Amino acid sequence: MSTQLLVPFTEGDRSMSALLGGKGANLAEMTRLGLPVPPGFTITTEACREFMAHGSPPPELTAMVTDALRDLEWRSGQMFGSASDPLLVSVRSGARFSMPGMMETVLNVGLTDVTLPGLVARGGARFAWDCYRRLVQMFGHTVLGIDASRFEDLLSKARAATGASDDAGLDAATLADLVGEFRSVLVSHTGQDLPQDPREQLDRAVTAVFASWDSPRARVYRAHERIPDDLGTAVNVVAMVYGNTGPRSGSGVCFTRNPATGKAEAYGDYLANAQGEDVVNGSRTTLPLSALAGLEPAAHAELLDHLRTLERHYRDLCDVEFTIEDSRLWVLQTRVGKRSPAAAFRIAADLSEEGLISLDEALGRVDGHQLESLLHPRFDAAAGHEPLASGLPASPGASVGEAVFDPATAVVRAAEGRPCVLVRTETSPDDVDGIIAAVAVVTARGGLTSHAAVVARGLGRTCVTSVSGLDVDESQRLAVLADGHRIEEGDLLSVDGTSGHVYAGRLRVTPSPVYAAMAGREPTSPAADDESTARAVRLLLAHADRVRHLRVRANAETPAEAREARALGAEGIGLCRTEHMLLGARRELVERVVVDDRRTEALAEIERLAMEDFTELLTAMDGLPVVVRLLDPPLHEFLPDLVELSVRVAAEGARGLVEPALAARLAAVRRWHEQNPMLGLRGVRLLTVIPELVDAHVRALVSAAAVLRQQGLDPRPEIMVPLVADVAELALARRRVEVTLEQVATTRHTVDCPVGVMIELPRAALTAGALAGEAEFFSFGTNDLTQTTWGISRDDAEAGFLTSYREAGLLADDPFTRLDETGVGELILIAVDRGRVARPDLGLGACGEHAGDPESIAFLAGAGLDYVSCSPPRVPVARLEAGRAAVRPSEAGDTR
Amino acid sequence: MSTQLLVPFTEGDRSMSALLGGKGANLAEMTRLGLPVPPGFTITTEACREFMAHGSPPPELTAMVTDALRDLEWRSGQMFGSASDPLLVSVRSGARFSMPGMMETVLNVGLTDVTLPGLVARGGARFAWDCYRRLVQMFGHTVLGIDASRFEDLLSKARAATGASDDAGLDAATLADLVGEFRSVLVSHTGQDLPQDPREQLDRAVTAVFASWDSPRARVYRAHERIPDDLGTAVNVVAMVYGNTGPRSGSGVCFTRNPATGKAEAYGDYLANAQGEDVVNGSRTTLPLSALAGLEPAAHAELLDHLRTLERHYRDLCDVEFTIEDSRLWVLQTRVGKRSPAAAFRIAADLSEEGLISLDEALGRVDGHQLESLLHPRFDAAAGHEPLASGLPASPGASVGEAVFDPATAVVRAAEGRPCVLVRTETSPDDVDGIIAAVAVVTARGGLTSHAAVVARGLGRTCVTSVSGLDVDESQRLAVLADGHRIEEGDLLSVDGTSGHVYAGRLRVTPSPVYAAMAGREPTSPAADDESTARAVRLLLAHADRVRHLRVRANAETPAEAREARALGAEGIGLCRTEHMLLGARRELVERVVVDDRRTEALAEIERLAMEDFTELLTAMDGLPVVVRLLDPPLHEFLPDLVELSVRVAAEGARGLVEPALAARLAAVRRWHEQNPMLGLRGVRLLTVIPELVDAHVRALVSAAAVLRQQGLDPRPEIMVPLVADVAELALARRRVEVTLEQVATTRHTVDCPVGVMIELPRAALTAGALAGEAEFFSFGTNDLTQTTWGISRDDAEAGFLTSYREAGLLADDPFTRLDETGVGELILIAVDRGRVARPDLGLGACGEHAGDPESIAFLAGAGLDYVSCSPPRVPVARLEAGRAAVRPSEAGDTR
Repeated sequence: MSTQLLVPFTEGDRSMSALLGGKGANLAEMTRLGLPVPPGFTITTEACREFMAHGSPPPELTAMVTDALRDLEWRSGQMFGSASDPLLVSVRSGARFSMPGMMETVLNVGLTDVTLPGLVARGGARFAWDCYRRLVQMFGHTVLGIDASRFEDLLSKARAATGASDDAGLDAATLADLVGEFRSVLVSHTGQDLPQDPREQLDRAVTAVFASWDSPRARVYRAHERIPDDLGTAVNVVAMVYGNTGPRSGSGVCFTRNPATGKAEAYGDYLANAQGEDVVNGSRTTLPLSALAGLEPAAHAELLDHLRTLERHYRDLCDVEFTIEDSRLWVLQTRVGKRSPAAAFRIAADLSEEGLISLDEALGRVDGHQLESLLHPRFDAAAGHEPLASGLPASPGASVGEAVFDPATAVVRAAEGRPCVLVRTETSPDDVDGIIAAVAVVTARGGLTSHAAVVARGLGRTCVTSVSGLDVDESQRLAVLADGHRIEEGDLLSVDGTSGHVYAGRLRVTPSPVYAAMAGREPTSPAADDESTARAVRLLLAHADRVRHLRVRANAETPAEAREARALGAEGIGLCRTEHMLLGARRELVERVVVDDRRTEALAEIERLAMEDFTELLTAMDGLPVVVRLLDPPLHEFLPDLVELSVRVAAEGARGLVEPALAARLAAVRRWHEQNPMLGLRGVRLLTVIPELVDAHVRALVSAAAVLRQQGLDPRPEIMVPLVADVAELALARRRVEVTLEQVATTRHTVDCPVGVMIELPRAALTAGALAGEAEFFSFGTNDLTQTTWGISRDDAEAGFLTSYREAGLLADDPFTRLDETGVGELILIAVDRGRVARPDLGLGACGEHAGDPESIAFLAGAGLDYVSCSPPRVPVARLEAGRAAVRPSEAGDTR
Repeated sequence: MSTQLLVPFTEGDRSMSALLGGKGANLAEMTRLGLPVPPGFTITTEACREFMAHGSPPPELTAMVTDALRDLEWRSGQMFGSASDPLLVSVRSGARFSMPGMMETVLNVGLTDVTLPGLVARGGARFAWDCYRRLVQMFGHTVLGIDASRFEDLLSKARAATGASDDAGLDAATLADLVGEFRSVLVSHTGQDLPQDPREQLDRAVTAVFASWDSPRARVYRAHERIPDDLGTAVNVVAMVYGNTGPRSGSGVCFTRNPATGKAEAYGDYLANAQGEDVVNGSRTTLPLSALAGLEPAAHAELLDHLRTLERHYRDLCDVEFTIEDSRLWVLQTRVGKRSPAAAFRIAADLSEEGLISLDEALGRVDGHQLESLLHPRFDAAAGHEPLASGLPASPGASVGEAVFDPATAVVRAAEGRPCVLVRTETSPDDVDGIIAAVAVVTARGGLTSHAAVVARGLGRTCVTSVSGLDVDESQRLAVLADGHRIEEGDLLSVDGTSGHVYAGRLRVTPSPVYAAMAGREPTSPAADDESTARAVRLLLAHADRVRHLRVRANAETPAEAREARALGAEGIGLCRTEHMLLGARRELVERVVVDDRRTEALAEIERLAMEDFTELLTAMDGLPVVVRLLDPPLHEFLPDLVELSVRVAAEGARGLVEPALAARLAAVRRWHEQNPMLGLRGVRLLTVIPELVDAHVRALVSAAAVLRQQGLDPRPEIMVPLVADVAELALARRRVEVTLEQVATTRHTVDCPVGVMIELPRAALTAGALAGEAEFFSFGTNDLTQTTWGISRDDAEAGFLTSYREAGLLADDPFTRLDETGVGELILIAVDRGRVARPDLGLGACGEHAGDPESIAFLAGAGLDYVSCSPPRVPVARLEAGRAAVRPSEAGDTR
């Protein structure tokens, strides 16, 4: 048969979801398994495609539906259109992928003024009129396109008139009146009454489902989810069974396991004397599934039996819709069920231990986003609270503290033991002291990769950025929201970095027990479910570690970060940013070097402090590589802000007393000011301007390593040169490092210290062959590489056009969050290829923000990298995703 | 013979310059041609390479030199070491490429206490002692490495003691004394007297030449010029002839044509009773070559004959060194001669008309740098003046005007008809009015591609940037130089944009007659030489136009620029920067759009003005394409400066009276302020933020074209979308343009307006295949592509690290001046390839600064581009270089 336009449930199976849609394929599968599915058939996606091609259903479909209805009549013992015992059917859309925006369901199709008495005979007048009311309402809305509120308004008037608390309280007479009123609505809106030919009802419902595939909402959804427009939807026609015939009837929804915790026990809701929609819409209070054991013990036992069958058969959590009609159980739908992150881990681990799936499959059932959400503390019950304001969820976590508007105050409060939330227009390296001191950061500007976001994520601080309408006035110690709400210094704020919401007052916080378990700390609330989740996470991470090729290192500068990273499984430090060691009080030392004020002493002090830092860091990572990046940021970051200083000088000038030292300082700041510091004097370029500062760090690192080696430790320092565009720059840096290595070697032990290069400019990627001649390893700095490849400054873009771009639908993914495989990815592949040709044993890593993003990790693993480096809290995520990338058979197919 | 260590002049020829060096190969060639070259031989570069490999000359060389000397003795009839008629030789280095830093010459080798009497017999005692003095001096300096000043000091003492005005005035006794003193210097410095074995003199001189190949100065020079270190130098040993034996002797240097003007007549200097070095060092006044006709008519006639022979043989201008000894002519050296730009054109054109070379060859003999220098006015005689200060020659020209320190004053002065020089720390788009009004711009900061430089070149204004030590104080209307010199407002300055010098006072300026002739204007000084140069330029440009595939367009915004460009041969406008139409008073309109102040009226006014501009531009370029780039710069460029405004607000605040309007303005400026505007809200990104401003320009352009078409003209507008990183951006821009096109088409004639994309981000190049689906043409914006590929902001780099880089030898070429073929070039090739695959008829152009650079044009022509676009004054340069690229057989080989 060239085309299959219609397939009875008895002839399909689960593998046919392209033809039957997900719902139809699962109904056929359950029929095949012998579960009590009402008889039915599926009009296929092929028929829908014919409809789309010709604007009408294929002519041969009519006879097929007639035959299929005859089969339903035979199986149900009822007759379509019969006045005594009528067959009614439900008509439901069912595409391959579940898809909002399409017509969903018309129940009770086949009910007419003629067939109504037969239904009265089956379940009484109230039941029959209720069915008729539902049919007219659904047909009017979903087939004829009449606004749903027209019917809802009449229903609520009827409830008000009769004093009924819900629709179940309406009696037969009222419902009969409503059917009349609803039919008048149909006539007044479309000029037509409800068709009184049952077959016309059916055909028009089927055509409406087909047409809804092309509705604007459905098209927009598909474009967003990248679902092809030419798939089409299937239509399922199923003999009606009724949960609303009386107290021995009812409807329910249940899961084979608990979808919130993953606990291995059936879980669900049941509502007596109700149809399925009543369970879902929450208008009446449902009973727990266990209550069904008392009400209908046989049906309950049978249901549990079917749930076990389904789970064993599908090898996964399933959800099920069922109806009980006069104590008889009918299963109406099943699918693989959605679950919480905690349940995902627990179910995957349990199923593998139960032998239903392999550990590789279990790893495929969880992902890094889920793990990440398990690792962050959360507010206990944010549901009931209304947020003050919302922004981008820049760094997850749930933190409560007093609002402060400048870093100095944050430092003071923290020292007093008072948690605080730093609220800023945007942050700069100046603010890092304050970010360290704060429990959370809230900014009016900046995106997911803005300074505040990056630093906060690195430090594990909660952060919300781009809070629209937030106007911060530091001088008044005040912030005003768009609605006029004022946040004053000391006001308590609760910041949810997972949702991006900011709340007034103190919400209760629960730390993540999974994180505590992983980092080897005592969990604060060792609940049984948390224990189980933590155990499942450990099990799957251990498997990921076994199978992955990609190593995971951490970005870290302090011994505390290094120790935490190691506890979380980091296999070294992939990025130690020397400039992060020059913050706070140390910044003044750099300023003295830059403006040439007691320079020699400042350099000596910087070297002494750096050697202390490196000694601790190498000790914490003993035996593992520690990659130290030479000084990277523009010099002006160590100097006062130009605008602030200009204003200060002008203000003093207005009072007639500008200090010469201040004027000189302004001159220095002006001299180092740059139009575009991101493209300016930074990275390896500093080496030609203030080489001594770079030398001081190199000497400190190798000296620290030499001393530790003498003490019997195994320090493994590596040096990374940032912002290289041409091999001559790298060669110069390398020579300087080698000279320092030789100097230290003459006085202490020899230290081996590989030199590598950050690939963070397009030209570095293109000239990777030449660079590999001077570098033992590459590390892709994917943040900067994205900035220059796209020509977008991440500091500015979020506040600027990226928001407009998202609104205009121009950017499917933020390239700073998910690695842009087309552009940046090609440069990475070019560099890997040319680098390895020039030096086969070249080390390859990545250390941008992307190294913590699950999808990006899969790409980097596929590109053949040896390691990724991310902030310590993301190390487990990266381990998991590296494992997933290793067991993925190929590029993931349809996982929706 | 596996190696050739020594080749007599009689056995070599011109093709052997790799083995014999340039000098040796030409001496052999002249010997072959029968010219009177003294007998001699060349010790080859092969021998030098052996020396470098083993630290000593090859042993078999000794016998070869002995044989070769015997041959010289036979040919000269003199004996090496003879006391009666000694053979003396000169020893000269001669590498393949002329190379400073190497030992050059030792004359009179073979002269000893024993052979001296033989020389006295030949030319008298004074002559003989003068030769001896020269030998000891040269041997001491170049072979033994004694500082030259030691000998010069003794010479000047002797001159002082005897009252001689120059060395020729020293008598035999004084010279004999000097030889004694010089020999004492040798002994006191090296412990050795001048070797008294003639052969030892020769061998040590040869070894010294070999060793000088590896001198530090020579190595640095080679590294800079990219000459391989392993070539080695040859050594020429030639029988001495003497121009200093008396009045019938002398030495001269001459050219086959005039190397300054190119006029076809022999040209040179002659000095009687002198050796060659006396002619060159300028210690005595030389006679013109024509004077030789009276002094030595036979030798003069013979010389002219030889010059004709050489020019016909070499098919180019040659220079020649000659000596006359007792009326007998000897030719000592020849080579293809250096020439001025004017002469280069005239000689190439004349030689082709004389049938000696083809027009293709003639085109190969000139280049764009030469043409460029011919097109700019110059100071008449800057030689005698000492510059006040020097910087980078950013835009050529010679301009005189009064110093002003702000654009407003420049505008006022210009309106009064007073030429002025705008002196700034650096310029910004704010200053463009002032740059237009000024005749020259001088800045303390910024490089060859800084704002000032780019705008000045575009406008044809003279410009010098990066003037070191220049401190500009606008408020005091004063600039101070490093040496304390003060430039006050109104002081006259003469600015030479070709040399980068700035002079005090008024230097006399000559406009370029070549430029005037090309642009169809009356030259101010129609001298015969200028006429000839202009004719030669026209001849070669006409040939370039015939052979080139690459079209040349101009960057232009005003009708005057467009007309000039067309007169200079532009085949369209390749880049019309809409933002350049929004300067001066119009800026306020944009500000009103941005800050939303009477926005609709401002937009309407912008559209009205733009339509006027476009109408004039399309009229001036009737029948030729006019590519209009949509608005490109960051919005803040249209707003006041953040620092200045902050200071102003602070100052008013200190006086207690900040106007609300001013505060609101500061808020707007703060809102649009960006950390890195180059990577911020600009180009196509503006389309999502202020689309109406972009629409206004599109509507103005197509409306103007529609009106002109109705009037029977042939307007050819094209629209170019800047800063595209992703095809979705281009598709959005294209749709907006199409909507506007349709709107205009309904009311007026249909206008065809192709839409293209600027390829100026690495990602655009990488995704060129997708972009070609939405673009009729690509235009490579090589400035921005260089910025992002290298991660260098051109605004900042020059003031920042590029200077340090040059000092450290890190950058052979500035990538903003010469296209970086390795990185940026690869991206261009990728984009051309992918673009043409996706759309075979894709138009391809380039419109960065590089489009005016000769070497870069050759690359772009080779990449298969259809056109380049450059500033109007550079159009002839681009035409010439495009022609040269077309006739170049392949990548140029050795042209040094």
